[in-house]
Amino acid sequence: MATLEDIAVSAALNILTTFIILIAFAILRIQSLNDRVYFPKWYLKGIRTSPTHSGAFVRKFVNLDFRSYLRFLNWMPDACMMAEHELIEHAGLDSAVYLRIYLMGLKIFVPIGVLACAVLAPVNFTNSTLGKKAKQWKVTSSDIDKLSTSNIPFKSERFWAHIVLAYVFTFWTCYVLMKEYEKVAAMRLHFLATEGRRPDQFTVLVRNVPPDPDESVNELVEHFFSVNHPDHYLTHQMLINANKLDKLVKKKKRVQNCLDNYQIKYSKDPSKRPVMKTGFLGLCGKKVDAIDHFEKLSEKIADERERVVSDPQSIMPAAFVSFKTRWGAAVCAQTQQTRNPTIWLTEWAPEPRDVYWKNLAIPYVSLRIRRLIIGVAFFFLTLFFMIPIAFVQSLASVEGIEKAAPFLKPLVETKFIKSVIQGFLPGIVLKLFLIFLQMILMIMSKYEGFVSLSSLERRSASRYYIFKLVNVFLGSIISGTAFEQLNSFIKQSANEIPKTVGVAIPIKATFFITYVMVDGWAGIALEILRLQPLIIYHLKSFFLGETETDKEEAMDPGSIGFNTAEPRIQFYFLLGLVYATVTPLLLPFIIVFFALAYVVFRHQIINVYNQEYESGAAFWPDVHKRVIAALVISQLLLMGLLSMKEAAQSTPFLIALPVLTIWFHRFCTGCYESAFVKYPLQEAMMKDALERAREPNLNVKDYLRRAYIHPVFKTADEDEDEIDMLFGSRENENVLIPTKRQSRRNTPVPSRSEISDASSQSPSLPDTVRESLEP
Amino acid sequence: MATLEDIAVSAALNILTTFIILIAFAILRIQSLNDRVYFPKWYLKGIRTSPTHSGAFVRKFVNLDFRSYLRFLNWMPDACMMAEHELIEHAGLDSAVYLRIYLMGLKIFVPIGVLACAVLAPVNFTNSTLGKKAKQWKVTSSDIDKLSTSNIPFKSERFWAHIVLAYVFTFWTCYVLMKEYEKVAAMRLHFLATEGRRPDQFTVLVRNVPPDPDESVNELVEHFFSVNHPDHYLTHQMLINANKLDKLVKKKKRVQNCLDNYQIKYSKDPSKRPVMKTGFLGLCGKKVDAIDHFEKLSEKIADERERVVSDPQSIMPAAFVSFKTRWGAAVCAQTQQTRNPTIWLTEWAPEPRDVYWKNLAIPYVSLRIRRLIIGVAFFFLTLFFMIPIAFVQSLASVEGIEKAAPFLKPLVETKFIKSVIQGFLPGIVLKLFLIFLQMILMIMSKYEGFVSLSSLERRSASRYYIFKLVNVFLGSIISGTAFEQLNSFIKQSANEIPKTVGVAIPIKATFFITYVMVDGWAGIALEILRLQPLIIYHLKSFFLGETETDKEEAMDPGSIGFNTAEPRIQFYFLLGLVYATVTPLLLPFIIVFFALAYVVFRHQIINVYNQEYESGAAFWPDVHKRVIAALVISQLLLMGLLSMKEAAQSTPFLIALPVLTIWFHRFCTGCYESAFVKYPLQEAMMKDALERAREPNLNVKDYLRRAYIHPVFKTADEDEDEIDMLFGSRENENVLIPTKRQSRRNTPVPSRSEISDASSQSPSLPDTVRESLEP
Repeated sequence: MATLEDIAVSAALNILTTFIILIAFAILRIQSLNDRVYFPKWYLKGIRTSPTHSGAFVRKFVNLDFRSYLRFLNWMPDACMMAEHELIEHAGLDSAVYLRIYLMGLKIFVPIGVLACAVLAPVNFTNSTLGKKAKQWKVTSSDIDKLSTSNIPFKSERFWAHIVLAYVFTFWTCYVLMKEYEKVAAMRLHFLATEGRRPDQFTVLVRNVPPDPDESVNELVEHFFSVNHPDHYLTHQMLINANKLDKLVKKKKRVQNCLDNYQIKYSKDPSKRPVMKTGFLGLCGKKVDAIDHFEKLSEKIADERERVVSDPQSIMPAAFVSFKTRWGAAVCAQTQQTRNPTIWLTEWAPEPRDVYWKNLAIPYVSLRIRRLIIGVAFFFLTLFFMIPIAFVQSLASVEGIEKAAPFLKPLVETKFIKSVIQGFLPGIVLKLFLIFLQMILMIMSKYEGFVSLSSLERRSASRYYIFKLVNVFLGSIISGTAFEQLNSFIKQSANEIPKTVGVAIPIKATFFITYVMVDGWAGIALEILRLQPLIIYHLKSFFLGETETDKEEAMDPGSIGFNTAEPRIQFYFLLGLVYATVTPLLLPFIIVFFALAYVVFRHQIINVYNQEYESGAAFWPDVHKRVIAALVISQLLLMGLLSMKEAAQSTPFLIALPVLTIWFHRFCTGCYESAFVKYPLQEAMMKDALERAREPNLNVKDYLRRAYIHPVFKTADEDEDEIDMLFGSRENENVLIPTKRQSRRNTPVPSRSEISDASSQSPSLPDTVRESLEP
Repeated sequence: MATLEDIAVSAALNILTTFIILIAFAILRIQSLNDRVYFPKWYLKGIRTSPTHSGAFVRKFVNLDFRSYLRFLNWMPDACMMAEHELIEHAGLDSAVYLRIYLMGLKIFVPIGVLACAVLAPVNFTNSTLGKKAKQWKVTSSDIDKLSTSNIPFKSERFWAHIVLAYVFTFWTCYVLMKEYEKVAAMRLHFLATEGRRPDQFTVLVRNVPPDPDESVNELVEHFFSVNHPDHYLTHQMLINANKLDKLVKKKKRVQNCLDNYQIKYSKDPSKRPVMKTGFLGLCGKKVDAIDHFEKLSEKIADERERVVSDPQSIMPAAFVSFKTRWGAAVCAQTQQTRNPTIWLTEWAPEPRDVYWKNLAIPYVSLRIRRLIIGVAFFFLTLFFMIPIAFVQSLASVEGIEKAAPFLKPLVETKFIKSVIQGFLPGIVLKLFLIFLQMILMIMSKYEGFVSLSSLERRSASRYYIFKLVNVFLGSIISGTAFEQLNSFIKQSANEIPKTVGVAIPIKATFFITYVMVDGWAGIALEILRLQPLIIYHLKSFFLGETETDKEEAMDPGSIGFNTAEPRIQFYFLLGLVYATVTPLLLPFIIVFFALAYVVFRHQIINVYNQEYESGAAFWPDVHKRVIAALVISQLLLMGLLSMKEAAQSTPFLIALPVLTIWFHRFCTGCYESAFVKYPLQEAMMKDALERAREPNLNVKDYLRRAYIHPVFKTADEDEDEIDMLFGSRENENVLIPTKRQSRRNTPVPSRSEISDASSQSPSLPDTVRESLEP
């Protein structure tokens, strides 16, 4: 058991690490060489370009302005200064709401931490159980444990303090959760209401169009919706199965990159034809003439393109159906079309960027079977995932290496290498497997058939959370693989399980404090340093070339990565709630994590990340649900702990807590969840009326004509102008900042232009119309 | 342990009882005196009237035609002869589908029974475990147990037979369930599609209209729907809080009945004014002059009526909103109206007869809190209900009575009375408490705030099923109150629970065989005898009077009583599925129950029951769900039983069964449930187009004008003509059978007239319109 001093030393070390990382970041970020690594978002928005100072050659790469070194921490206040509505304009609602999760952590844990330390620390500390035991058994107990419930004697009346505080903490957490849910729902609705015209507002995704012997899918869709939504149906976009074409286009792009480099390097020597390898990453495979290869590919693509467009076989039984009004689309998305609920399935179309094209045409029965398969697979993955890790870790130990490769023995026995192997290798193995796990989870979600990137990420996130809960949280506490845990749980009675876990919890407090410092503090600091993108960017720009396009290609802004980042935060919520009543000393560490992560991610969101899509904070119900789950787990464990302490009189008072918490969750779901899944008719009607008053001659059909086209028909060079036609027109309309150029990767700026759009145009709305719109 | 002979004796006794009851019924039903008890449905339909034979006085009461006594069992084929579509026309879809539950029982259990008896009986019987044990321990084992799994030695390879059959039974049950779900869904959709115009097709119930300082609820509703459903909104009907008026009207009706009798009896003596008591049932309270009292009541009612209609305070924040088309109503019912999902809640309006008026105006938050309260209350009710029963039963024992009232000792010690007390009193106490329980469950459902009678009954049914499962099934097996069970379950490990129950199951087989015979066979036979309504009818018609109205008043057709009858059937599904692999001998008894109950209930539905409402078989998803639950329970118990028998090799093969079953349930829910909760737009559009073509000048507004009016505004005498205006007009249109008079209680004949309506009129439909309607 660690003493307070051990913790202090560990904390000092971790704080030092964190500071070193932050200073390294502060120095690296002001070097103009790294500008594209630390400010890619501004490049993508077209506000920043490569530094073109007409000065010394060195200044192009290294910052020689020493004054800027003095202000090396000023990114922190900078990151916090941008107001929330500006942030929404700048980075989208998803990112802004994502930050609110950290803020919610602070809101929950700061008051809880103060109260717990003020009340529980003295209650726990003024006992002498551990002291007595120490004398009796001649073991030294640590100070940390003196501050935890371990120090309270059996059947003590003092447990009433814990029970009362458990109620207080639950009510406070629920209160904050409800307020946040309310706020985020309002933000989402406001966001949807104020954003401008977007294709997905008018469009519904129709899946499982039944086959018809007499009509083509195209005609069928048109007839069906003309009959059943006669006043509202406008047009539809058939879906073409372009997976093969997609592959070819991607291949061609790779070849072209290669070719561009060759052309620059060998433009002076036309006799030397560029040669490339066809295999993996251009590193293996047979050598071919690059120009020939490129031309062949172009031909193939043209053929495939023609085939795909003309072949009726490549039309998928699904379509994007657009309506004349938002009202019509809202109605169609929320209602059932035919008797058979497995055909003509309608749902809101995701944003065009958000569509996951490959999954659009999976039949209903297949979908259900896939869910079953993945459910079973995930169950076994969770149970047995730790087994290969343990196996590889045993191989990666000093003894393992010596056994597998005896000739390495002298090398391995070297003191330095031995300590590296012992200290780092197991951790690296675990980290690698976890990265691998995230990929597996993503593949699982894709196989399950979700049709939008956002839902894929949400699904992976909830799976990853369950995995962490079972394998990291319970795994650390009971120490054993998930399968061993399951085995022991099955053989224990229902009231023994919380006891088993509850007993282990106070003991593991010091472990989790260290975990928070290493994974939370230093890990978050590493996030801002962006080591991996930094190295890759410099490697790429060194090897690939120096054109503007190449630099943009080498730049990797990344994104929040909801599927991995959110479960990570949730883990801290779990730790905080579980330990709030048991070992309140853990709370300050968690509060520091939330504060640091908030600042870091705010900075990253402002300067770095480029979200691929905008789901309008559709993930919030999941966040809420998981905090509730953590709350219920903490209550059950407290019950187990207290019943183990034989506080039989007081424990039954805790039973009401999980019941009330679950009821609260259902109440909140009833009140707010619909904001995230449905689109109220009143809102749709209001926007329709507003638009009709403002632009009476708008041609919606023309606007929607090519909104939902498979990206493969857009990304090819010849369609560059078409993209402009489709997206550029909107982005060009109302831009606040003078745009120097349009990025090829379209960054989400839907809200900014739209808000200004709405505010600037609404005064022109006739008063009568406005009045009629107010409910 | 009972031997086969014991079972045979018990069976003979029960068969005898059942036959005596059936013969008694056969004799009683052909007496013209009892005509209104055994054929009330035909009276309500107006097809049958009181016998007015101009013959001997005796023949008016007793059937003297001896030939009819010879054919005393011919009601059975009669009951079976009516085809299903005729049955739907005659008694409604609810009743017809209710019968299908029994039919489904036969479909599931006849093949399973044959297979189980053919395969498992020899497999179990040819062992000698019990014989050996018997020799060893000198106990006699019964033949029944030789046929059960108890007879198979530990770790036997023969358990593979049980496992394979468990798979076969599960697949067969699921197959039948799916076919039935499909069929019932199709029947429901066909029923909805072919029935004629009904107010609820055009109407949506809107609840939680938010208060508005500027507008009355009336104006608010009109404005809201004119703005948000401009093309479809037609009219609306405000809801008036008429609970007080309702009470007064009911009181007046009672007084009037009394008055009518007096007037007949004392018409010759005008000096003697009728006198009545105001208290309970006219039996206690102070005496008042009946005519005065009646007049005062009439005045009060008129006052209250005026107050209620004019007072804006009595208008509830809810309304029935009607639309021009079924399409418009379908859209409004399935969509969310405003940002806030707790106001302007829309759902399909129940049939006017089905509305439970008192619950229409409960606010959202209150509803959620009520759910929580009732949930907790039901939990404790289930746990502790057996305690007062046991207490009263102990009081009702011979010793208990002697203790409480020593002076009764000589009477109680009489042999006959003693045996009555010992044999019947505990059973009667249990029966009384169970009737009481059903009332409590109904009150709970009402408090929970459901808005239709059908949903009230469905909710009570599912609660009653859970109660029976815990207190009767588990209670008989583990013998103990639910609370004791819970206590022992909590203290057992998760894999011990199925073992504990599994071990007890084969032992309890004989008990359940007796249960099936007593509760199932004799109980169902008693159902057809209708002892209670028979006695009450004769008492009432003796005391109250002999006018036609009085006789109709005394007649009590009753209804299926879904909330108690369905959980009863489900209990037999549970028994059958649990014992199919364990003691196949139980199955024949269950098959006899299903067959007998099918015939009896078919007869009752044709001749007796008068359903209060028509929900279109909305209960089927619940039926399906509960059979699935029984299936999963049976699988878990089999797993427990086998693992107790240490068939460790084979048991893991059973784990896939519950997973597959639950997946199957979700699959079926996805495929068919929506037919019971949603109304597809295509269907609505088709019916609208059909109607428009057939009756282009239809005034829907006029048709709907008074459809949803609180019944209190209809039942008063002065509105008799209004009812005719509202309902009579429709009923008079197309009647197949010459109606002699209209019953005051409107019996549901929605489908007959409508089908003929549809079939007779559809030829006049232009071909072009028809073609355009086909999807």
